[in-house]
Parts: sequence; structure tokens; C-alpha cells
Amino acid sequence: MATAQVAEQTGPEQPFFPDEPFKPHMRTAIPGPESHKAIRDLDKVFDTGSLNMMANYQNSFGNYIADLDGNVLLDVYAQIASIPVGYSNPTLLAVATSPEMASAIINRPALGNFPQHDWADILRTGVLKVAPKGLDQVFTAMAGSDANEVAYKAAFMWKRRQERGGADVEFSAEEISSAMNNQSPGSPHMSILSFKSAFHGRLFGSLSTTRSKPVHKLDIPAFDWPQAPFPQLKYPLAERASENAAEEARCLAETEDLIKNFHNPVAAVVVEPIQSEGGDNHASAAFFKGLREITKRHDVMFIVDEVQTGVGATGRFWAHDHWNMADPPDMVTFSKKAQTAGFYFVNPDLRPNKPYRQFNTWMGDPARAILFRAIIKEIERLNLVESTAQVGGYLYSGLERLAERYPNEIQNLRGKGQGTFIAWDSPRREDFLKRAKGFGVNIGGSGERAVRLRPMLVFQKHHGGFSLYRPGLCDIGKTQS
Amino acid sequence: MATAQVAEQTGPEQPFFPDEPFKPHMRTAIPGPESHKAIRDLDKVFDTGSLNMMANYQNSFGNYIADLDGNVLLDVYAQIASIPVGYSNPTLLAVATSPEMASAIINRPALGNFPQHDWADILRTGVLKVAPKGLDQVFTAMAGSDANEVAYKAAFMWKRRQERGGADVEFSAEEISSAMNNQSPGSPHMSILSFKSAFHGRLFGSLSTTRSKPVHKLDIPAFDWPQAPFPQLKYPLAERASENAAEEARCLAETEDLIKNFHNPVAAVVVEPIQSEGGDNHASAAFFKGLREITKRHDVMFIVDEVQTGVGATGRFWAHDHWNMADPPDMVTFSKKAQTAGFYFVNPDLRPNKPYRQFNTWMGDPARAILFRAIIKEIERLNLVESTAQVGGYLYSGLERLAERYPNEIQNLRGKGQGTFIAWDSPRREDFLKRAKGFGVNIGGSGERAVRLRPMLVFQKHHGGFSLYRPGLCDIGKTQS
Repeated sequence: MATAQVAEQTGPEQPFFPDEPFKPHMRTAIPGPESHKAIRDLDKVFDTGSLNMMANYQNSFGNYIADLDGNVLLDVYAQIASIPVGYSNPTLLAVATSPEMASAIINRPALGNFPQHDWADILRTGVLKVAPKGLDQVFTAMAGSDANEVAYKAAFMWKRRQERGGADVEFSAEEISSAMNNQSPGSPHMSILSFKSAFHGRLFGSLSTTRSKPVHKLDIPAFDWPQAPFPQLKYPLAERASENAAEEARCLAETEDLIKNFHNPVAAVVVEPIQSEGGDNHASAAFFKGLREITKRHDVMFIVDEVQTGVGATGRFWAHDHWNMADPPDMVTFSKKAQTAGFYFVNPDLRPNKPYRQFNTWMGDPARAILFRAIIKEIERLNLVESTAQVGGYLYSGLERLAERYPNEIQNLRGKGQGTFIAWDSPRREDFLKRAKGFGVNIGGSGERAVRLRPMLVFQKHHGGFSLYRPGLCDIGKTQS
Repeated sequence: MATAQVAEQTGPEQPFFPDEPFKPHMRTAIPGPESHKAIRDLDKVFDTGSLNMMANYQNSFGNYIADLDGNVLLDVYAQIASIPVGYSNPTLLAVATSPEMASAIINRPALGNFPQHDWADILRTGVLKVAPKGLDQVFTAMAGSDANEVAYKAAFMWKRRQERGGADVEFSAEEISSAMNNQSPGSPHMSILSFKSAFHGRLFGSLSTTRSKPVHKLDIPAFDWPQAPFPQLKYPLAERASENAAEEARCLAETEDLIKNFHNPVAAVVVEPIQSEGGDNHASAAFFKGLREITKRHDVMFIVDEVQTGVGATGRFWAHDHWNMADPPDMVTFSKKAQTAGFYFVNPDLRPNKPYRQFNTWMGDPARAILFRAIIKEIERLNLVESTAQVGGYLYSGLERLAERYPNEIQNLRGKGQGTFIAWDSPRREDFLKRAKGFGVNIGGSGERAVRLRPMLVFQKHHGGFSLYRPGLCDIGKTQS
């Protein structure tokens, strides 16, 4: 990627972390000898089959991840999009060593039974301070997968309550006895509708809505739930507008058809604003507004899964903010960069009508909620959502020029106006990712052939300038052995 | 419970925490006015339908939990059996404020992709140091529910791999395409067998094996999986030996019959050493040995769910240690008092044959694994498993005498020789629990009518002496209004 233009534009920029490394520093191939030894050792007790790189986090700082062999890489993968404000962030460090955090770590409550006295305050000044527009309550969880599953459970309980005739109608004897036997009507044959190539997690319920890759699903029993087609847009968008609009209309029509006709009635539709694991697949705001309308029309819940897209990466705090939708989603799930998880909602009917229906021992983790509050403060202090919007625009234009120069290497560039949530298709993706690592850039893929940028919110223009400028990164087609 | 005998036996005892309160201190009814206000406030943003008591953990210490109104209660419920070594434990506090913990909190890795350099060491000196006999590997998770689900997934993948003819046999095209559609054979119609009144969690897969109460299951879709009867033992055990043996034989026979004949083939049997949420139901070592034999005979996995029973509460580190079984279980799941979660195993075939099959972003939490290591050290330092065995024996004999005196209040006393994992049936359970709280003892129930003791491992004879001596606790039948 020899692009002098990109580097020139970098210009003087105030770094968020003056002590951050100036650039990657590669001493060995990855994994180097020390890492090799450590990986072999770890493999004796822990599956290393999916290991990418062994890291030393005490030596990692800002956008840079360190390994055991003295290598320091620019990290635009960020723990699968989960590090929000940089490694070893000094502001977070202060909070992590506070007496409040220490108490939260060692005195972990069963939140539904014995919440701590300041739980409402922790939520209001943290998790709920950034609640999506129109939503004012939260059910906390542990990770993206179970955040989605508690949202699904809320949808099923809500739908069955409607069918039953309201909160005051008691369960029938038949419901009670059949539920204990995992049979209908107590365990209803209802479903959650998701989309092809969606990813919503890997527990049994969430995996039944995940349609990303066979390796995620093979050999695991799944519910008989419907999948609708997700728009497969053609790029560049401006040139394929009418074709894309027709594709989205087709997907909406099939979605509505499934809601009307699928044999296991649909309680909710779940969708990612940008399909992430499935290959960075985008759709227009019009498509999502259409979905919202369909779910209203048929009285099913509309769940937006912001596990990967949320917390600023798209240049808005929530990716669905881009849609400017009149009605909020019914539920919005979050995790990853929030470092805690759960779902937001507003409809009081999504609180079950009896105690212990939506419940588990921990119901989240106050320590992680305290950390999210600190992350939010750091985002505000450094104005990181706005910064990400700008840096993303800068990155996208640079990549656009590169794509013109290397049309065989950078295809279907996407994510314009979506902050740093940018991706493109690469015909030699695995080689590209490996070579990038050799140059000192830790970068990941999604789907079958996409390269995805998933930097932290503290990623700045000068980081982009460096990584794009790196000569040779786009020449892999010519030089691979 | 006016039992002078019990109090007399208390005698001089070295307290683990000299600074612990000497006894409960009740200033108001619970909830008091401050708590009332705080609960009303919390309810605006967070479901308080299952709230038991709002706590102030900074003021809680050792076995005593504080609330917002100046009340301090002896806590023998311990966050649903999840606090191992006391509130605000000084040893844990030191670890919670260490630089190592701070880094773990703010630099949370995607453990399967980018583990930290000392992850093997953290596991070996912590989680794996207490691995059940015969098991030497671990897959880490977040909570009991997903610990069970990843164990189930491992069982399904293992079983299908066997059926397919080994790790080298590739997935068929039909498997791949059907899995993406949630259909067999790719999403196989296989099952996990669990027991009536079992509790294994509330996510969709784990909830399909949970059979504790309708309120846990109603309105949630479930897999068509089999449930075997769990022995319903009669007490006192010594007087009903032959009857109980016959009951266990009957349950084993039905279990084997289900494994042989259930229409969705069984990949694994999951069982709790003591059914906890389901009402503190016990079975003999012979029953569990019989189960192990049946699972071997039919080549299905034997999963022992030690989420509530594990980490010392039964007077052995793992409750299944009591069985003295020749073969270890195939998998043992843990959470709660470990403050982290996962499953132990030894068979290398339980590691999937391809990367990213058993995977998720966080795959546990190093911060919580570091905490578990500190908990283990504290358990060793204070010899808490042995102590719990002794205190449990003392408690049990005291309760035995009380049961003789109050046969209508304390029925089916159980947990002899099982540390402090003691329970009894109470015909007026809700009143008893409420009255106990009024006296300054926070205690919980399980199942329909059991009172369960689930104190911390730092519960000592003098705590028991106090709570049992409390006059009037067993007279509720006479005095209720």
C-alpha cells in the first residue's frame, strides 16, 4: 500500500496518549521463540486451536499490543472489537484500583436478590446514561450471547402473555405440566427470526439465530427457527442504488412472509445494524425502518443486536442511531466494548409478571458495570465518538483511493459514514492478514473473505497513516511464495 | 429453637476474622425505611420483583451482611451459595487491588485468540490446582449456565464425531447445509438427559435440562430432551435403607431405559451431586456409581454439575469426591464459589477437532480466574474444607436434636457428613425464613418446602451456636398471626 497521499494528509494531530509507541516494532516472526514455548505449554491445559497471538498486556499500551518476544503491533482488531479506549488506559487503571472496584470484585452479589445500595446510581451514571434514545431500563447480563438470550426470553414471555390475555391470566394446569416436560403449550413452539449470515452468539438459543458459518453450528442441536435473507448489496452503493433498493425490498417481503407463515410463530426479529462476524454486511436505514414497520404491523418484538456495533465504533454511540428511526427498537443488546452486557428496553411489559421468571444468580457483574461507567467518562472526556466519525471518514477516503489503485486487492469497500467500522473483500484474505501481522499490524477478518477494521475508539489519523502507508501490504498477490 | 445443649458445645474457638461482628444487630424491620426508598428508586430502572434485601457490601464483613438501615445479619445464604471466604475478605482485598488484577480488569482478552502470557500459570496455580481427581484440563466460561452449555456442546461434538467415524472424517455436504438451516443431520436431534427437579441453569440449552420449577421454564421454548426420575429418599436414611435402595435401583433402571430408547439419542447425562435449587435432594454414592457405569456401558458422557456443590461446602473440595469413584466423571462444571466458571475434563477428544468450534469472544475472565486462585489460597491457609466438614458435623448434630424436639417444624433433615450443605423441610417455610430474617439471620429456601443452609466456608461453630440458639425460631407455628 504505497500511498504517499494518505501519509501526507496525516498532519499534526494531538495524540490521546503521548506515551504510546510511535509505531510497531517487530523483532521476530509471530509467533517468536518465546511465544512458541508458551503456546506449547498452554496447550497442555487449555485448547490453543484458535490461538492467534499470545500477548503481554502489561506491556501493551493504547493502540499497541505487545507479545512475549518484544514485538509491538498496532492493534486494529482489539480483542474482536472489545477494547474501547486502549490497553492499560490510565483513566481506567485509576478506577480499577479504587476501593469501589475492589469491593465489587470481592463482594459479588446475586443482583436480583441482594443488589448493592448504589446499584441504581451505578446504572444511571453508567450503563443507562448512554441508553439508546427512547429506552430507559436495563436487564444486565454477562456477555453478548446471554444478553441476546435474556432478550429472547423476554420476548417469548411477553408474546405468550399477550396470547394468554394479559398479565392477570394465570398459567393453565396444562401449561404448567407440559413445561416441566419441555412440551408445548408450556414450552411453546415459538421462534425468533434472524437473518442469513447473522451472528448472535453460540449458546443454544443464540446459536439457533446465528447463521454465520457451518463451523459455528455443526453438531449442535438447534431450534427450528426461521431465517430471512439479508440484503446482499452491490458496491459502490451510489452506482447500484436501484438494484440495491430492489434487493432490500425483496428481503423485507420475505421477512414479512416468514413472520406471517412460519410454522413456529415468531415472537421477535433480531438483527445486527451491520452483520459483523458474517462478513461486514450492510443495509440501508430504509431497510431497517422497513423492518421496524413490519414488526409493528405483526406485533412482534424488534431486537437490535449492538454487541459488536455499539459503543461508538460507527461514529455514533449506537449504530442504529444512524437510522433516525421514529420508534426505538423494543430491545437493544450490548456487550464487547461496554465490557459488560445486557439489553435495554422501555416497555414495562418486558418485565415478567412474576418474580424469578427472568432471573439468574449473578445477573451481570457490578465490577464490569463500574468499568463501563469509567469507559463512558473516558469517551466523553476525549470526545471519542466524534473522533471516531472523523478518523473513520479519513480512513475511508484513503482506502477508497487505494481501492482504485489496487482493484484486485481491495474490493467492495464498505462502511462509508460508519466511523471506523470499515471492511473490504480481499481475494487473498488469509495471506493479507498474515502479511499485515508481519508488518506489525494486528488485523482480523470476517465472513469468508472480508478484512475488517475494528480499531479502538482511540485510533487516530496518525495510526491510520502509518498502517496504510506500510509499503507492500497490497502486493501480496505478486509476492506470495 | 431454645437449645441450651447446642450453645454449650460451642466452646472457645479461634475466629477466622477477629474483627467480625459478634452477633447480628437489628435496628429496623427489613426492609427498613432507607432500603424502602432505595428499592423504590432502583425499581424505576431495574426489575426488583425478586429482590430479597438491599445490601451495603462496603459495610459487610465475614459472615455478616449489612443493609442500608444499620441492620447487620448473619448470612447463611451467601448470595445463593456464591460467597466462599466471607465479605470484604482481607486476603482477597489485597489481590483485588494488585497491579495484576488491575491489568486483568482493564485489558480483558479474547482468551481463545489472544491469551495473556501467564494464562497457563494462572490456571495451573489456580483453577487447575483444585481440578477434580483424574481431570487435568479446563474450558473456562462466565457462569454456571454457560459452563453447562459448553460442556453439553463438547458432548454433542464428541458424540457426533464418534458416529461420523473419527476426527479425520470430514463433515458431509448435507451436514453443512442442514446445519445452516437448523436441521438434522447438521443440527442433530440429540439430547442431554437430566433428572426431575434438577437445576442446571436458565439459558435455552441449560434450561432444557432444568426441571426444578414451572416458573423457571414457562413460556420458553425447550428441546425435546429426556428426564429421568431422581431418587426420592426417605428419612432418617438409616431406618429406610432397603426402601431407599429400591428407589435408587428404580431410578437407575429408568435412566438406562431412557438412554437406550429415547427418540432423540442421548449424548450425555448431567447430574448434580445434591440437587440444590430443586429442594436439596440427596442420593447415595452407590446411585452415582451406578450412573457412571450406565454411561460407560452406553458410551455417553457423564457430566457432574458442581456449580452449587463445589468448592468445599460439602466438606470435600468437590461433592463428588464423597463417592470415591474409580473413574472420574467425563466433565465437571463449576461456578458460584469459584467466582469464575467452566468445565474440567481429561479426554483429549473433548477438544473439538477444528478451531473455532468451541469458542466465543471472552471464553471466561482472567480477572475472575485470578480471584479464584486467591480464594483457593485462602481456603488452604485457613484449612476451610476440613473446617467446613467439622462445623457441618456439629451443626447437623445440633439440628438433629432440634428435630427431635420440634418434629413438626424440622422434617427430613438431610446432609449428614456433607459439611454445611444441610437442609430440612419446613411446613411453614416462608414464615420461618421471614422470621429468621427478623432475628438477624439471612437464610434461604430451595424447592417447595426446604430450608437450606448455604453458609460460607468461614462459617464457624460459634456462628452456628448463635443462630441455632436464637429463641423462638422454631415456634412460628404457634405464634403466627
